[in-house]
Amino acid sequence: MNILDQIKEELPWLGNNEIYDLTRGKPSPNQLLLSQKLIESISQPFEMDGVDLRNYGTPEGIKPARNLGSTILGTEEEKTLALDNSSLTLMHQILACSYFLGFNSSKLTPESKFICLVPGYDRHFKLLENFGIEMISVPFLENGPDIEKIKEFIAKDSGIHGIVCVPRHSNPTGHTFTDEQVDQIFKAVQPNKENFMIIWDNAYACHDLKETIEQSSASIIANRNGVEDNLFILGSTSKITLAGAGISFISSSTKNLDQFISYRNSLTPAPNKMNQGLHAKIFSQVSIIDHMTELKKLILPKFELVESYLLNLKKMNLCEFASPTGGYFFSFESSNNNAEEIINTCGEVGLKLLPVGSCFPYLKDPNNSNIRLAPTFPNIEDLEKCMEIFSKVVIKLN
Amino acid sequence: MNILDQIKEELPWLGNNEIYDLTRGKPSPNQLLLSQKLIESISQPFEMDGVDLRNYGTPEGIKPARNLGSTILGTEEEKTLALDNSSLTLMHQILACSYFLGFNSSKLTPESKFICLVPGYDRHFKLLENFGIEMISVPFLENGPDIEKIKEFIAKDSGIHGIVCVPRHSNPTGHTFTDEQVDQIFKAVQPNKENFMIIWDNAYACHDLKETIEQSSASIIANRNGVEDNLFILGSTSKITLAGAGISFISSSTKNLDQFISYRNSLTPAPNKMNQGLHAKIFSQVSIIDHMTELKKLILPKFELVESYLLNLKKMNLCEFASPTGGYFFSFESSNNNAEEIINTCGEVGLKLLPVGSCFPYLKDPNNSNIRLAPTFPNIEDLEKCMEIFSKVVIKLN
Repeated sequence: MNILDQIKEELPWLGNNEIYDLTRGKPSPNQLLLSQKLIESISQPFEMDGVDLRNYGTPEGIKPARNLGSTILGTEEEKTLALDNSSLTLMHQILACSYFLGFNSSKLTPESKFICLVPGYDRHFKLLENFGIEMISVPFLENGPDIEKIKEFIAKDSGIHGIVCVPRHSNPTGHTFTDEQVDQIFKAVQPNKENFMIIWDNAYACHDLKETIEQSSASIIANRNGVEDNLFILGSTSKITLAGAGISFISSSTKNLDQFISYRNSLTPAPNKMNQGLHAKIFSQVSIIDHMTELKKLILPKFELVESYLLNLKKMNLCEFASPTGGYFFSFESSNNNAEEIINTCGEVGLKLLPVGSCFPYLKDPNNSNIRLAPTFPNIEDLEKCMEIFSKVVIKLN
Repeated sequence: MNILDQIKEELPWLGNNEIYDLTRGKPSPNQLLLSQKLIESISQPFEMDGVDLRNYGTPEGIKPARNLGSTILGTEEEKTLALDNSSLTLMHQILACSYFLGFNSSKLTPESKFICLVPGYDRHFKLLENFGIEMISVPFLENGPDIEKIKEFIAKDSGIHGIVCVPRHSNPTGHTFTDEQVDQIFKAVQPNKENFMIIWDNAYACHDLKETIEQSSASIIANRNGVEDNLFILGSTSKITLAGAGISFISSSTKNLDQFISYRNSLTPAPNKMNQGLHAKIFSQVSIIDHMTELKKLILPKFELVESYLLNLKKMNLCEFASPTGGYFFSFESSNNNAEEIINTCGEVGLKLLPVGSCFPYLKDPNNSNIRLAPTFPNIEDLEKCMEIFSKVVIKLN
């Protein structure tokens, strides 16, 4: 009997043709319901802080929304802009601004290279690739970024003009950078600081599920290292309120923000301030911390479930994985270097996973070992079935 | 007595230090109140057409919003995407997509040139300039675009890779292109159609204030001329519902839209579908036509007021202007070629106007004659004061 038939025999409920999906880091409907209830409990404001939310203008975002962003990102309100619904779109716009106009300490060219910590976020890599930027992979070590490697690459190549990081609950590995590591990264980039962009995507800034180390503000560490003009901190409420309908934030030096606002004035008459007002009002009624605590109650059991399955596989010497203390993902490392086979086999029995290599530049996983698991979207019963399928496949393919 | 003192003496109410402003095409608070009331009369939907509006996904926009876009733009629903809050941001993204990846029949390069009808929209020009695109000005003739000039330029230069047009109530001249003119423009671009982008910003598609000629769908005329892969139609509800908080649309060939969605997938996980659902619900309760009729009642008296002042100046041989049948602007042409002086003098007595040259690429008005007047934002009493100041200045500077 071939493996597919064996799995189907051992998991008879597979016959129902249902498709299970662990591809994308999407909030579950019950997470979204929490935000929906908050939205339904207030009325949409049309004016706030003396600003008509219904009209054009206020390109930097309204003050209460900027304040919200600074709270989430741990930045200064005056150096934090509140903008539209996607921080990824802001990354597109800051890359474009650097490429075509330049910032004080960043001017991308068709020959620019970026350091990418791997495994990392697929859309970051695709976005950089689309700008023609050459990506240099630097694998994570067990305890965080391989700073010696970063230092080495930068020391020998003045054409490296940037790095992209997710400093807390990194997607997908779950790493949270220590202050010491942040300090070392900011020191490592100094040789190229005349033209260097640190993209600091703090997407999971307040998404702790378990005890997680405290982090100082990256802005302060950047100031101390004289790289404040190189640092672009991004974030959003996408995984706090509604995915795709939240608001995004950017924090950088005043010089950079002035240049960015000037560039943005050519590509939008204004951010959506109605949504900013809505968000500001929501978080004047409930604190971010309390809301995240409610979300945690829904997400943590799913993480514990996935972890129990992966621990079992690890005990069988079939994988390695880091136990994340927050964020949205697990990063599975096959000990047999057969990620592609696992992914394909899962697909054949109804569990969708991202294609092999998705967490790497150019979709190339050098070890054919990494699989990102995104456990938040399915309900816990379906998630258990996902993990049953996944474990079964990993074991059968041993 | 110098001119400033004369004006202040003749308009004694100027002493109150109030600032009058005719710079930007912003809806007035009472226009916005109409939309606010519509929003307040419904509840925000969280699910529509089987789609969870609260989550990521549906990169092409929800069906009812795409339908709304196709109604406004006169395009096919399947070839119309509904996206975020700014069509200008979509223009930025399609230019970037063409520049870095290319569309089927458009690949911008650092040497690309664009034809710009002048006077035109300042943000279009700044956006093109920021991409390093060389802009070639083609002045409007009395009855519309100078198609012979367009033909001439394109025939002799294969490096011209695009044109940007506002085909109905053009900003600021108010021209509305006839089907015959559209047909001729689409024929004129054919020599470069292997690499040509027609940006068709239909921002004022349903913003008639007086009887305006009917227009066939630009898509149909493009198809007939074999330039469907060159045409990118843009629009939004910014001046229908809320400025900055509406939804935007793009229509093009299926090939182009597929490429654009694929590009967009690197720069956003999803459009804001909550806002799309809100808009779809609003316009299931009230028709666009009825809503625009209500808006017209507020805007038309302002246009009539401005027109009466300009007619008076025209009779004195101090200016030319076209009488717009809709849109948001008047385009004043000084007969004395002293636009800069008029603008500066107005500024000194408290009336803000856009800097000279604002409606031209590189801010260069070759005749120093054009001033854009945006009459929608002030209330009618303030608008009358604006026009009193403006007329007085124009007359005094004769």
